[in-house]
Formats: sequence, structure tokens, C-alpha cells
Amino acid sequence: MKLYIGNKNYSSWSMRSGVLLAAFGIPFEEVMLRFDFRPGSEWNRRIAGISPTGRVPTLVEADGFTVWDTLAIAEYIADRHPEHAVWPRDLRARARARSLCAEMHAGFTRLRTVCPMNIEVFFPDVGEKLWAEDAALRADVARLDAAWSDALQAGGGPFLFGAFSAADAYFAPVAVRLSRFGLPLSDAAAAYRDALLAHPAVEDWVADAMREQDFVAEDEPYRSQR
Amino acid sequence: MKLYIGNKNYSSWSMRSGVLLAAFGIPFEEVMLRFDFRPGSEWNRRIAGISPTGRVPTLVEADGFTVWDTLAIAEYIADRHPEHAVWPRDLRARARARSLCAEMHAGFTRLRTVCPMNIEVFFPDVGEKLWAEDAALRADVARLDAAWSDALQAGGGPFLFGAFSAADAYFAPVAVRLSRFGLPLSDAAAAYRDALLAHPAVEDWVADAMREQDFVAEDEPYRSQR
Ligand SMILES: N[C@@H](CCC(=O)N[C@@H](CS)C(=O)NCC(=O)O)C(=O)O
Ligand SMILES: N[C@@H](CCC(=O)N[C@@H](CS)C(=O)NCC(=O)O)C(=O)O
Repeated sequence: MKLYIGNKNYSSWSMRSGVLLAAFGIPFEEVMLRFDFRPGSEWNRRIAGISPTGRVPTLVEADGFTVWDTLAIAEYIADRHPEHAVWPRDLRARARARSLCAEMHAGFTRLRTVCPMNIEVFFPDVGEKLWAEDAALRADVARLDAAWSDALQAGGGPFLFGAFSAADAYFAPVAVRLSRFGLPLSDAAAAYRDALLAHPAVEDWVADAMREQDFVAEDEPYRSQR
Repeated sequence: MKLYIGNKNYSSWSMRSGVLLAAFGIPFEEVMLRFDFRPGSEWNRRIAGISPTGRVPTLVEADGFTVWDTLAIAEYIADRHPEHAVWPRDLRARARARSLCAEMHAGFTRLRTVCPMNIEVFFPDVGEKLWAEDAALRADVARLDAAWSDALQAGGGPFLFGAFSAADAYFAPVAVRLSRFGLPLSDAAAAYRDALLAHPAVEDWVADAMREQDFVAEDEPYRSQR
């Protein structure tokens, strides 16, 4: 099974699938397609043959069978590996985990837009300015904090539903954004952010991202060069 | 089990969950919260107590247990009713159905933005103008047409994966948009659009929407009054 991903430094959606597979120790081959949207680039030459949506992550089985979109990839991994609790085993915890992931999948758009993932850089000054000026960002973080705090209280921590699950993989890039932009959280949510960042699968992804040393202008609203 | 929905005429996300439950004959109580975002409205007074995201649909069990977001609701219904093939029974068909739903959940944004659901009105002139002028809309419809055609070819029709599944419920509001705005499709995709619109659960939803006779200004880019 191959997982096509984008740059580890920037690709928040790729990170969700990559961290999920790694956290459960499921073997896969990682294939990185460097983001490069210029005409004739390797990305542009290859992506249409790999992903029906032109996006990563995309999971491809040895015979070519393809699953695209992170949420479907999480469900497929859960189906393919019933030996792992990819989703919580309890029916109601599972429904809440999926509600959070579905909400993340289409929501928190302001946070995603103004605080894009960029693992190698810390932007506390940008974060402070955004926090002061951007009510929609504050609303996204308030909802996130409430959602995390509710789940942690019901599940007992350290992860959202006790043991690490797909919901935690889904929020790993969010923990990165919150830490890079230094956005304020309640104590419970901050402890969870730190637990996520300290998970070995997240640490490994972050370490790889740090080694990339790439610069993709499209993903750099706050820097003009490395 | 209660399903909180918005106006049937406008609420495409509500339609997905409502049609899914109805198509499988799963009993539920439907509770409509009329869209009205003015200060002090019933919507504003009630929504925070019902939905953690402030959005519909939201599914609430008798004891208050809540599942929000259409995709999580579909998964919960599948978990709660294993006697129904809410998702295709075949592992790979299921993975493809979920890929399509996840893609729909966060994608086709141009189609959703410029062709909002408004069941009671036909806008072929608006559709023709948009089609001529809007390349992003054409790209969304081209991708949709390809995705549908691929699934139909593999699954044999009349629905995306043979028998009606959650994936079809997910595209029911899209079939409405395409028909109301008169957007062009390949023969295979057009036949599927019509099969969806002729499904009893979709027909019932549409008939109820027609009877609403409501007018919500926020959802009316192309009319100033009824
Ligand atoms: N809903 C998709 C989103 C995937 C996505 O937007 N991926 C980005 C990278 S993080 C991408 O491939 N962008 C390239 C493009 O849009 O051309 C998912 O969950 O997998
Ligand atoms: N991702 C959500 C989207 C739900 C959604 O946007 N619902 C709309 C009605 S179709 C809504 O409640 N809008 C009210 C608002 O945004 O205040 C889902 O799949 O359930």
C-alpha cells in the first residue's frame, strides 16, 4: 500500500493520514510528490494519474485500487485493520469522534486560512496580531477548545477518546498550527495539544518536515524566502 | 431519535441526513428549525442548545446523546442499523463511496456557492449564464460527472454503487441543484441525476419543500421575493 503525500512541512491533510498509519504501526510506502504548481512540474505531470481529485493524500493498493480524501482513508484503514481501534470501540465515543472529524473536514476554515501549517517556522508575532484582530479566528479556536475539552472530560485523556484514535490524527496538524502561531488555549486543551505533539508518530512527521528545507511560495503568506 | 433540520427548501445538508433515514425506513422524529438569523429569532434562541456547531442537521437520541455533521450521522446510522446496507457491503465499494462523500463534504465549493439549493425554483437562465462565464463551476461539474460515471460503470447503476446507499443521499441535493440550474451532464450522469430525483425519499423531501412557501433572504441570491 502506497500513501502519496505532499511536502511534510506544509501538507496538513497528508499529515493526518501519515500520522494515522504510523501511530498504528501499519506498514505502508510513503511517496512524496513535492508541491510545485508551475507548468510542466513533476507534480503537474504525475498528480492526475494518481489522484482523481488532483490532491493528496491518496492511498493506492498494489493493484491500483485507490482511496482518496483523508476521512475515507481513515475509514478504509479502520475497515482493513479491524485489529486496531482506529476509531473508539464504543459506539457513542465512535460517533463523537466521527462528528469531530467531519466538523474538522469542512470546518475551522478561518483557522486553516489565516494560520496555514508550516512546521518549520514559529510565528508568535503573527499569531498575536491575528488573535487581536480576527474575531472569526478567535471563534474557531473557541469552538475547537470547547470540542476538545468536552471530549477529554468524557474520555479521560490523554487523547480525545482515551487511547490515540483517528480523531487525534485529524487534529495533529491543528496542534502544530496552534503551537507555531502561539494561539491561547484553556489548560485542558493546551495539555492535549502538547500530548499530541509529543506522540511519536507526530514527532517523527515533524522531524521529517524539519529536514525538508523546502520553500513553496504558495504556502508562505508570512515569509518571502527561507 | 430526533433529527433537527433547517428549511427543506434550502437546507442541502439536512436533506442528506433526512433522505438517508427515509430511504432506509428508519423511524425518526423530524424537527424543523426555520432559518432566521435575526437577533432574538427562534433559531438563535434554540440552536446553541441543540447543536454544538450551531448547524443542522443534528441527530439527538432520547437521552440527549448528540451526533452532528452529516458524514458522522451517516456513519452512526450505519453503526446503529447494521441490518441496512447504509454503505455498500463490499469493502472496496464502501471505500469508494466514502471517498466520494468525503470529497463532497469539503469539495465542489464553486457549485455549492454559485448554485445554492432552492428546491422550489427553476433558474435555467441563471444556470446558462453561469455555465458560460464560470470556469470553476464547469470544472466542479466535470469532476462530478466523471466521479458519478466511474462509480456507475463499476456498480452497474441505477445508483452509484448499485442499490441506494449513503453516497446517493449525499448527492441528492446536488441532483436538485443540477436540475434547477439546468446544468449540462453526460448521458450517464443525467440518467443518475434523474434516478436520484425519482427516488421516493427524495420525492417526498422535494414535495415537503414545495409546500413550505417560505422565503429566507440569506439563501436567495437570485430572487428578491417569492
Ligand atoms: N478534502 C481533502 C483535502 C486535500 C487537500 O486539499 N490537499 C492539499 C494538500 S494539504 C492538496 O493536495 N493541494 C493541491 C491542490 O489543491 O492542487 C482531504 O481531506 O484529503
Ligand atoms: N459540515 C456540516 C455543514 C452543515 C451546514 O452548513 N448546515 C447549514 C444548513 S444547510 C446551517 O446550519 N447553517 C446555519 C449557519 O451556518 O449558521 C454538515 O455536514 O452537517
